[in-house]
Amino acid sequence: MDVVLEAGERLDDLQNGYKLIQQTRDFCYGIDAVLLSWFARIKKGERALDLCTGSGVIPILLKAKTEGAHFTGLEIQERSAATARKSVKYNDLGGDVSIVTGDVREAVSIFGAASFPVVTCNPPYMTGNHGLTNAAPAKAIARHEILCTLEDVVSQTAALLTDRGRFYMVHRPFRLAEIMGTLMKYGLEPKRMQLVYPYVDREPNLVLVEALKGGRPRITVERPLIVYDGPGQYSRQIHEIYGLEWNPGR
Amino acid sequence: MDVVLEAGERLDDLQNGYKLIQQTRDFCYGIDAVLLSWFARIKKGERALDLCTGSGVIPILLKAKTEGAHFTGLEIQERSAATARKSVKYNDLGGDVSIVTGDVREAVSIFGAASFPVVTCNPPYMTGNHGLTNAAPAKAIARHEILCTLEDVVSQTAALLTDRGRFYMVHRPFRLAEIMGTLMKYGLEPKRMQLVYPYVDREPNLVLVEALKGGRPRITVERPLIVYDGPGQYSRQIHEIYGLEWNPGR
Repeated sequence: MDVVLEAGERLDDLQNGYKLIQQTRDFCYGIDAVLLSWFARIKKGERALDLCTGSGVIPILLKAKTEGAHFTGLEIQERSAATARKSVKYNDLGGDVSIVTGDVREAVSIFGAASFPVVTCNPPYMTGNHGLTNAAPAKAIARHEILCTLEDVVSQTAALLTDRGRFYMVHRPFRLAEIMGTLMKYGLEPKRMQLVYPYVDREPNLVLVEALKGGRPRITVERPLIVYDGPGQYSRQIHEIYGLEWNPGR
Repeated sequence: MDVVLEAGERLDDLQNGYKLIQQTRDFCYGIDAVLLSWFARIKKGERALDLCTGSGVIPILLKAKTEGAHFTGLEIQERSAATARKSVKYNDLGGDVSIVTGDVREAVSIFGAASFPVVTCNPPYMTGNHGLTNAAPAKAIARHEILCTLEDVVSQTAALLTDRGRFYMVHRPFRLAEIMGTLMKYGLEPKRMQLVYPYVDREPNLVLVEALKGGRPRITVERPLIVYDGPGQYSRQIHEIYGLEWNPGR
């Protein structure tokens, strides 16, 4: 294929037949993107939109994992969007994945109301007051609510979804109450949630949420997702999610 | 002491120096009451109010565990309130625990606004549509939202609490989003939460929540509380909460 890596770009094997190009100076995807793609349920033939897509990792993971018809990623930072398009081309996924450069706050204007049955998002986690602002602007924009807030993401998602459409998001547990409140404010009922605990005796550091547009109040809280059994030793659950062989005897 | 058990009454050892009288035909306390008493933090000299107190188990557990100044229980069912008073007398706690017969929906009228720095509640979990209504009215009232709803409990609590007062509640996870939304609606910010999982690989069946009147948005989600290590084998955490000796080798 006619894709040439340039200085500052790295190529990661997604372990699902596809590879991902990332800019080392930009935000690189982590376990949160992998867990969101695992948690999201895309039905056969559905079209899905990923907000704040960055390197496009979530659309590509969802393409590999599901039978969805088409995946669109929206990204505000031109350099990230260009890199995502390069990954699409590298993997010959031009017919399956589209990357659109644009502002999540204008997503309804870009795509139209009620235009997707599924929206996913791995948004910036930190508000202005939480955590240190990264010196590199591109990384700071990916991590902090500089260009969009939780409420921007949720309000746009509520309008983008078709009736009974589903929203999947990964976020930090310290914002759980705000997440629930904001989802309900915009008519997205939280229906499923899973907390990700690094160890069985630690506080969770991620939360996965599924919300249903027009859903009735009742949420299923899933079993704990525990990442490590011990230092450097991924749990059986994580082995399964990453498609790694489980060999506890080693 | 001049307390005589009658037919239909049973005496349970709370393992903390106190005993509890319960009517076998009424709702008897479970692990949820014990976990709520463990989760709640009552500071030295504070007065606490327990809504939907039933047999009065929570005020008595809190009296044993904390240095709070006084504990009041409010119970709408006269037979339960009378039994709770009998336990107070049996344990010679008349100076520490008061049981008031009354409707939680009138709690502010009974006690006055801004009258407690701490409120606790183990409310009925089930709405009209969830779960079967128990044939016995007393048990049904304890389990189902027949005489009070979640919103009744939260709205009264918000008015009963002093500024920066704390509310501790145990409930079912399937109502988590509604719980968060209702708390925030009445100015009680969820600040701490812990999910109780029966086993490490099962969905949680209880959630413990602490909310702060006038608090700022940010919640700490605690490590998972796992009840059983295996069939009939309480976890180390539960041993510690119940004050039982931990002997994993047996």
